[in-house]
Amino acid sequence: MSDKSIPRKAVVLLSGGLDSTTVLAMALAEGFDCYCLSFSYGQRQSIELESAVQIAINQPVKQHKIAEIDLRIFGGSALTDDIEVPKSRSTLQMEDGIPVTYVPARNTIFLSYALAWADVLGARHIFIGVNALDYSGYPDCRPEFIAAFEALANLATKMGVEDEEGIRICAPLLHMSKAEIIRRGMRLGVDYSMTSSCYDPDGEGSACGECDACVLRRKGFEGAGVADPTRYQT
Amino acid sequence: MSDKSIPRKAVVLLSGGLDSTTVLAMALAEGFDCYCLSFSYGQRQSIELESAVQIAINQPVKQHKIAEIDLRIFGGSALTDDIEVPKSRSTLQMEDGIPVTYVPARNTIFLSYALAWADVLGARHIFIGVNALDYSGYPDCRPEFIAAFEALANLATKMGVEDEEGIRICAPLLHMSKAEIIRRGMRLGVDYSMTSSCYDPDGEGSACGECDACVLRRKGFEGAGVADPTRYQT
Repeated sequence: MSDKSIPRKAVVLLSGGLDSTTVLAMALAEGFDCYCLSFSYGQRQSIELESAVQIAINQPVKQHKIAEIDLRIFGGSALTDDIEVPKSRSTLQMEDGIPVTYVPARNTIFLSYALAWADVLGARHIFIGVNALDYSGYPDCRPEFIAAFEALANLATKMGVEDEEGIRICAPLLHMSKAEIIRRGMRLGVDYSMTSSCYDPDGEGSACGECDACVLRRKGFEGAGVADPTRYQT
Repeated sequence: MSDKSIPRKAVVLLSGGLDSTTVLAMALAEGFDCYCLSFSYGQRQSIELESAVQIAINQPVKQHKIAEIDLRIFGGSALTDDIEVPKSRSTLQMEDGIPVTYVPARNTIFLSYALAWADVLGARHIFIGVNALDYSGYPDCRPEFIAAFEALANLATKMGVEDEEGIRICAPLLHMSKAEIIRRGMRLGVDYSMTSSCYDPDGEGSACGECDACVLRRKGFEGAGVADPTRYQT
């Protein structure tokens, strides 16, 4: 049923962070018509969403939708609740269990929404910027989670059932280090000054420099041998 | 890690329809502490949500949350869009492909939210009233979909990873006919006059009597030999 002359559509989950922005650049470079999806979910780092909007405006994407979902109704995370964001942890400490910045079932919910849109658009590809190597201890960033969601997607939807090719969950960063991701993005022309990673930015959007996301980001730029364009408070 | 003396918690997806109301009665009868979850998702049959509220008030549930999610942003369904709801189809016609009342990825999204809440509560059981026998052609009402979501749930969450028993998706109606469901509910004291099934009710909440949901409901009461308490327009 597929017509190779028609550009392929992809739904791209775009948080406005370093990883998802690189994934968008990769999907565009592969020639996909990109439909970007972001979420307003009561996150404390709402600057991230503003970054997503600016990134989508500055890239040749087909459409950008922001879904309003309120994950605060369940609580249980430092990213949506009044739980303190841990600071200055080493990457070794990060490997010690699931951190309080884990938002329960967040990637499952994000992918479910992407799946709904893909089913309406007839898009066979969903891109997500999860990364298992510079591991922050989130269960829903592992390869086995992505594989399980792809299996589900092909049972859950009209397209999964009716289309012979089915739906693919593309997680191209899964096995890349942060430094590799940055190097790839630089080659694709990503402007990382537009991206936000910090879990706890100040009112002006400056990164704290000390949360897990900042620690991993700093380490990534160092490893890539690239100047870090992030505005840090410290 | 499980302590059998502590009542088990369950998240119960409660739409306010016949099926989910019966499932709630079954979960309560099994001794679960029930945390009910409903959705306001831009559905045309908002009377369904009012039914869910009334049912939860009248049952000994621990909590009832309503998540506001707007599935209209993606479109593609007669239940959320200005697409006409088909009427007076035979059950044979219903078996012919996926109907326009299919809401893309709806059950995946609903279960994802339930999973988030279960992970926060420490609930190992999620109840959903899907039914594959009186089949309306929805891909996300099939046993293989439920099994795939359970596999995903145990990879996606803190509890799936850390708890030895893991998460179970309970779909007790999966292989029951509508008549069997009604008979079971009657034995458990369910008041079906409080439930709403119609996809296209009028302003006063009267059921159309002719959409797929009404046709299946009527047939179910006939088969069960029970008077149908539904207020129909026709």
